[in-house]
Amino acid sequence: MEFPVLYLRKGAERRLRAGHLWVYSNEVDTRRSPLSGFESGSQVQVRAANDKPVGIAFVNPHALICGRLVTRDAAHGLTPRLLTERMEAALQLRQRLFDKPFYRWIFGDGDGLSGLVVDRFDDVVVVQISCAGMEQMKDAIVRAIQRLTHARSIIFKNDGKMRRVEGLADYVETAHGPDVELLAVEENGARFEVPLAGGQKTGWFYDHRMNRRRLQAYASGLRVLDVFSYVGGWGIQAALAGASQVTCVDASSAALDSVHHNAGLNRLDNVDTLHGDAFEALKALADEKEKYDVVVLDPPALIPRRRDQKAGEQAYARLNQLGLRLLERDGLLVSASCSMHLSQDRLVDIIRGSGRRIDRFVQLLEQGHQAPDHPAVPGIRETDYIKACFARSLTGFF
Amino acid sequence: MEFPVLYLRKGAERRLRAGHLWVYSNEVDTRRSPLSGFESGSQVQVRAANDKPVGIAFVNPHALICGRLVTRDAAHGLTPRLLTERMEAALQLRQRLFDKPFYRWIFGDGDGLSGLVVDRFDDVVVVQISCAGMEQMKDAIVRAIQRLTHARSIIFKNDGKMRRVEGLADYVETAHGPDVELLAVEENGARFEVPLAGGQKTGWFYDHRMNRRRLQAYASGLRVLDVFSYVGGWGIQAALAGASQVTCVDASSAALDSVHHNAGLNRLDNVDTLHGDAFEALKALADEKEKYDVVVLDPPALIPRRRDQKAGEQAYARLNQLGLRLLERDGLLVSASCSMHLSQDRLVDIIRGSGRRIDRFVQLLEQGHQAPDHPAVPGIRETDYIKACFARSLTGFF
Repeated sequence: MEFPVLYLRKGAERRLRAGHLWVYSNEVDTRRSPLSGFESGSQVQVRAANDKPVGIAFVNPHALICGRLVTRDAAHGLTPRLLTERMEAALQLRQRLFDKPFYRWIFGDGDGLSGLVVDRFDDVVVVQISCAGMEQMKDAIVRAIQRLTHARSIIFKNDGKMRRVEGLADYVETAHGPDVELLAVEENGARFEVPLAGGQKTGWFYDHRMNRRRLQAYASGLRVLDVFSYVGGWGIQAALAGASQVTCVDASSAALDSVHHNAGLNRLDNVDTLHGDAFEALKALADEKEKYDVVVLDPPALIPRRRDQKAGEQAYARLNQLGLRLLERDGLLVSASCSMHLSQDRLVDIIRGSGRRIDRFVQLLEQGHQAPDHPAVPGIRETDYIKACFARSLTGFF
Repeated sequence: MEFPVLYLRKGAERRLRAGHLWVYSNEVDTRRSPLSGFESGSQVQVRAANDKPVGIAFVNPHALICGRLVTRDAAHGLTPRLLTERMEAALQLRQRLFDKPFYRWIFGDGDGLSGLVVDRFDDVVVVQISCAGMEQMKDAIVRAIQRLTHARSIIFKNDGKMRRVEGLADYVETAHGPDVELLAVEENGARFEVPLAGGQKTGWFYDHRMNRRRLQAYASGLRVLDVFSYVGGWGIQAALAGASQVTCVDASSAALDSVHHNAGLNRLDNVDTLHGDAFEALKALADEKEKYDVVVLDPPALIPRRRDQKAGEQAYARLNQLGLRLLERDGLLVSASCSMHLSQDRLVDIIRGSGRRIDRFVQLLEQGHQAPDHPAVPGIRETDYIKACFARSLTGFF
């Protein structure tokens, strides 16, 4: 096949050869290959300044990430056949690792499919496309899903801010089968039903599945506070593992309605909810001298952009200090972050600082990451984004 | 109680207040408090230059780490009673987390007991002391173990290079009960017997227990190569989880004898061994075009000292590249490190580089750390030392 050629500036190929998959717009030699000459979403051959080909990429002349490598084979692009092969390789991994068909089937670049996320909920498959190149593969994606699974419903939940960056419109569309209102999810032995419309992302966050499973090892007989609970992923799994009492805090009353619904689904009568801003709710609980054995903090990304680094880290520090204050003399803090801009080391350091400030002896017990259905690309730091520190806090111990 | 006072240089208290627990000899104000004036192993009150007390520490005038904080309460030191309380708090955590009494009961600073390691093998308890201050608590340690458990045997395995640094002699001594020759261990459903004398450290490495458990999720039906196998911790657990065939490589024929013995204990007939230097063995296997579905690399610390950083990282790179070469087209590399001088990020980067060099698409599936019976101190990087990256390697995929 013949592809239009995108020329890189001198040296810009190095990061790609080292494992990265993205071309930034300031790396393009726009004299030789003006970005305006490319059609958004088409595939182009990426070449180094010395003409040596690097691979084939989706191009988007309007985005900061203007190229997304889809193969290092510079002669062939991402065809429907190659897409299907990669989806099959991804499926094989998940089928090996998970007993039941509930997982993230495709995690974008990590599965060699930039801009594509596919979450599987048994026979309901939810697809989220976030780049123009992948948007052109829509039909091929549906056919691949049908070929590889017996999907009853295939839904494109194509919304979110990533699409705006790529110049793509928001829409939700059932591409195959009946419409779905409630997604039924199973995770670590717990059942959930989550509204698809209005839900966050694809409706469920499989990325913390292993960290939630680890929480289950600690929860028996304990009082658990689940902060930023969304539909109760952490709290309900803790309750099912024997927590004596669980309180879920969220700013969304719809999410808390789901918590109650999901508690019922799992025949739990010890899950209650607290509606409000997490920071304010934690302060109010501290004022009331409430104490918990376990506090889970799973906030949305508090450092959404690089320029928010300082304010964001301060927010994590405030949050972790509030969490530690609410713990019993021997308590467990589960401190999570999905900010790609917060490193594991920084999160540990924030916990260290928060603990010292209020004179707790903190033991770092476990450091969790995203589950293996979210494979990271070792060369792309942004793909390794989930952290969950399990820290025991002891008062009057040292 | 009255303690001799160790004065810090100006500003040296900051790291301690921030969570660290060690005083380095160049941080001591030796004009006000000459190190030669302290008795090795005694407890001293540590004070900042402005006279404010920081806490009580074990002192050793001859060691680079000349002070080890044992409490921030500057009025009371580490008494037998406080030692017992801390051992009890440590025990409560392990009893919550593990079904059976096989775990690291005390992990030094991480459990607030600098210089003390206690491994529990049911009713056999193996103690390793690595600083002069803790050596003086020997009797209190034995009494605490007897008070908190029904230990049949308590053994001091007091050897290793840390003791030489502290000016302590090497010895192995049964402090209570009958002598023990073989330690019986259970981990993740597998049984092991390990010779105590001549074995490494306390005889068993519980630190990778969770990473070995994760390997079990992948192993079914696969051919596994366990490199630096020691007594077969990874390989035998993989075989028990259904691996079709396991080969353990080690330079110690005694360790490989143990592998065979342990395979028999678990009624496994598909575990074989390969005696030799790991690097040479891997090269020879590559020359013979051998392929495995899973390669586990769990070398001893290849960066023993800071000055070995560059050579050590090169050794990790060589090793990981050899491991990747031996994988099938769709294979799993489990790349571990116990080097405190190799960060998680650097290990991931070494895997990235090794994969790129031989054109593999590498998916970083899981990032394992030490198990929660090895709690790290958030302020002391050296206490967070175990890494285990699970990386899928695909050939001809991207």
